[in-house]
Amino acid sequence: MADFNLECSIEFSAPIENILKEKFPIWVAKEINPELFRKGVPEDKEGSRIVDWSIGTNKLNLLIEGSSYLRPHDALLRLRNYFAEKLGSERIGVRNIFGKRYTIFYSPTRKPLDKVEIKVPWVKSIDFDGKVFKIVLENLDAKCFEDRYIERILKRIEEKIGKQYVHGKAGLTQEIKRSEKRIDKYVMKKDMSEILEEIGWAKKFSLAGIWGFSPPFASLIRAIETLIIKKVIKPMKFEEILLPRLIPFDTEHKKGHLAIPNEIFWVCPPFSRESEYFDDFIDYVEITQEIPTEILKNKLDKPIAGLAYAQCEGFYQLFEKKVVDIDKPLRFFDRFGPTWRAEFGGVRGLERLDEFYRMELMYLGSPEFVKNTRDEILDRTVEIVDKIFDLEWKIEKTIPIYLEHAGKVEEEKEEFVKTYDLSILLPFETLSRKEKELEIASFHVHKDFYAERFKYKERKNRIVWTGCTGLGITRFAYVFLIRHGLDFNNWPLEIKKIIKKMPSSLKDFIVE
Amino acid sequence: MADFNLECSIEFSAPIENILKEKFPIWVAKEINPELFRKGVPEDKEGSRIVDWSIGTNKLNLLIEGSSYLRPHDALLRLRNYFAEKLGSERIGVRNIFGKRYTIFYSPTRKPLDKVEIKVPWVKSIDFDGKVFKIVLENLDAKCFEDRYIERILKRIEEKIGKQYVHGKAGLTQEIKRSEKRIDKYVMKKDMSEILEEIGWAKKFSLAGIWGFSPPFASLIRAIETLIIKKVIKPMKFEEILLPRLIPFDTEHKKGHLAIPNEIFWVCPPFSRESEYFDDFIDYVEITQEIPTEILKNKLDKPIAGLAYAQCEGFYQLFEKKVVDIDKPLRFFDRFGPTWRAEFGGVRGLERLDEFYRMELMYLGSPEFVKNTRDEILDRTVEIVDKIFDLEWKIEKTIPIYLEHAGKVEEEKEEFVKTYDLSILLPFETLSRKEKELEIASFHVHKDFYAERFKYKERKNRIVWTGCTGLGITRFAYVFLIRHGLDFNNWPLEIKKIIKKMPSSLKDFIVE
Repeated sequence: MADFNLECSIEFSAPIENILKEKFPIWVAKEINPELFRKGVPEDKEGSRIVDWSIGTNKLNLLIEGSSYLRPHDALLRLRNYFAEKLGSERIGVRNIFGKRYTIFYSPTRKPLDKVEIKVPWVKSIDFDGKVFKIVLENLDAKCFEDRYIERILKRIEEKIGKQYVHGKAGLTQEIKRSEKRIDKYVMKKDMSEILEEIGWAKKFSLAGIWGFSPPFASLIRAIETLIIKKVIKPMKFEEILLPRLIPFDTEHKKGHLAIPNEIFWVCPPFSRESEYFDDFIDYVEITQEIPTEILKNKLDKPIAGLAYAQCEGFYQLFEKKVVDIDKPLRFFDRFGPTWRAEFGGVRGLERLDEFYRMELMYLGSPEFVKNTRDEILDRTVEIVDKIFDLEWKIEKTIPIYLEHAGKVEEEKEEFVKTYDLSILLPFETLSRKEKELEIASFHVHKDFYAERFKYKERKNRIVWTGCTGLGITRFAYVFLIRHGLDFNNWPLEIKKIIKKMPSSLKDFIVE
Repeated sequence: MADFNLECSIEFSAPIENILKEKFPIWVAKEINPELFRKGVPEDKEGSRIVDWSIGTNKLNLLIEGSSYLRPHDALLRLRNYFAEKLGSERIGVRNIFGKRYTIFYSPTRKPLDKVEIKVPWVKSIDFDGKVFKIVLENLDAKCFEDRYIERILKRIEEKIGKQYVHGKAGLTQEIKRSEKRIDKYVMKKDMSEILEEIGWAKKFSLAGIWGFSPPFASLIRAIETLIIKKVIKPMKFEEILLPRLIPFDTEHKKGHLAIPNEIFWVCPPFSRESEYFDDFIDYVEITQEIPTEILKNKLDKPIAGLAYAQCEGFYQLFEKKVVDIDKPLRFFDRFGPTWRAEFGGVRGLERLDEFYRMELMYLGSPEFVKNTRDEILDRTVEIVDKIFDLEWKIEKTIPIYLEHAGKVEEEKEEFVKTYDLSILLPFETLSRKEKELEIASFHVHKDFYAERFKYKERKNRIVWTGCTGLGITRFAYVFLIRHGLDFNNWPLEIKKIIKKMPSSLKDFIVE
């Protein structure tokens, strides 16, 4: 058998049996196999060829064999055009093409370590015999061929094998730099989330990972924000933008987030704008004082958006299909509100939340501009954490999480570091994870990954890079309090100067 | 027939036929009807009474008639205790009580204008004969009686009739004050949403009502925020808090938002945290480059939260079941990020969005404190709009939207104004609605509405009031631009002083 074997059919708009019975064998022998199916194929290579056929009233059934130089489905698309031309004068058109069964033998670049599955309706089976995949596809319509589903299935197999070679982030993480030891200086020796609730600085809501913050904690958050503006944003001339928090699906797709639906909160609108449509839900709540979320779920429409996960989703969208000029590079930042990650109730303390506050810095320009921007943000952030916060920290280079998100993880071979993580060492294991450290920021260069996915053009066709940095302000506040404790008087001067006077806590308003 | 007629049964834990056949007629005649079912009922009124019964092996079937002085289901609950006591020595317990059919005749306070329906599983029918409702309930278990479903069904009927008397907000709105005419001064004579996109100040996303904002617009938003902080927040000593944007169901319920599920975006988490669970969705996206949101929907769990609609939801939650002291009243504000309303794609311009930015001011204290706070915010806000923005405005008193949300709309009879709306007059009809004005803020006093629903106590049992004011910053920016146009040089000095230098627009980075 050839590498590609397509059992398919062409359906015509009128009876064609007689014409084909007479002429088709000649066309195959004289025009199709030797010419049409060889065009563009190197002299010494196989293209495609029709090896068998049967003729019905309106329909031609074919078996096409081919190689990767001309795959049978591309040959079939050519054949459709061929017939359109050939039969146009007879006023007969091609109504449809259809692939009943497509058997493909494919040698992967790397040997799979585990079973490879592609769960789409057209894939009947994928088997590996130790050297070659046998892939059987079924029920392929014209769209499958035209929209390159076949090529993407083969590419997806390669991606899934690539993923099998990657053993999580940990294996690819490597320490780059570390401060001197300082943990002894930390005022708090254990997590203080509960204490913060007791003293009325924070309030846990009934949903895991959702908290509210009262004036003292809010002041600290805003003071850290102000400090970052002073030390990073202003000197580096970042301009503020306001990015959406409901991310439409097209943006999610290009951002690569549809590869991590299991980590995102999805937003469903009500199915109807009419209150009456919800009468049974509303009446049930009013009568029983219980909340039948199952009834509500059935009254919701399909999801229309994801809740912002990366914060920068909208940034790339701003320039989709636009022509930019890397001689006018740009630096934007966003602090429009929280972002969200579905942590599945595995969140206990304030250090890991489902809803949290972060400042996101984004940059676009030449490779050098983007790399330098990222590196300078890193330096300036470390300066804050080291000099003002006086924390014990480390920098690691790690796997670019944005590639993982896009389902495009691969082993990193290049020297160039795409992602740095900045973590703070803690004197205890965090409540939510068994680790004595907390990542508070990560600093990315995407190279042209998003420029490609969002189809940026450059004025002179030069390469456009992008990058982003997320500074986790809620976590900055958390590690700050661990280091300096809850007594405002003992806090670093730089922070005290910003806050000036500590506001009242919730506790001051509540008698008991 | 009596007003309340309950066909019900009591199931016992052991055979009881013989005992009951002998004793039950005596108990009914001597103890139950004349004593147990009359306790607490006024001398001259009917209570409940057993009018018929039949005895099975383990089961007693009853017909109980009663009045609103002692309803049969409450009589039944008494009877359950009576039997527990009576039969305890025989080691027989009551296993279950069950209402097969409950026929209630109920005279409503006001005549219904339309059919009244209550869509819960227990309501078989509700008919009105012009004077009296005949309500038939079925299959009521102990929980229905214990948890007061019957009482709530009657209350709900009254609420639904009340709602029939309310003819929308418009009918209850009344103008209180209005500025002099100024529309002639407005620089823009029509909506400028499209223009803002053209000049790169704003960017429409693929989802209706979702926009991103580039540096010039973001600067204006922040400048307005700064101005409000200077003119309202600081002088009135409001303290910042950070409130959740994912509102858990228990908070939504007490806030009254479960009565408006049709206006809220609901948040569904992924059903599984395992990526593999989503393989078919992810593979489908990768192979087809299309997004099967139906597949995704089926992989989502029930909703766990609503997206913040009122912004102040979490505020009331902070004090749930707490003892407060109105001698220590409080003023908080939140600007943690956007809020959301499901506008059903009927949003075209920037004046009405699904995701928008608002500053929310909240206050809690004595009636006088709350009322004065609200009035002072109103005065200070009008001052900004009048003196600095130089806009044509009007103040209306209107129906408290928070009551509408809780499904508790009623005609307002009292003199005291619970809600003021501040609207700006426009020289054109907005893109999304046929009105030449835009509400930019509303100012509420809730009286003890939320204090009751969230069960606040007061140190000396005094009345606690709450209030809130939402200042729609995105709309402030919109009307500001309509009035003053897009040329920074022509803007009012107070705003120019805050912004200092206008940043670049998106357009400056995009060649085409």
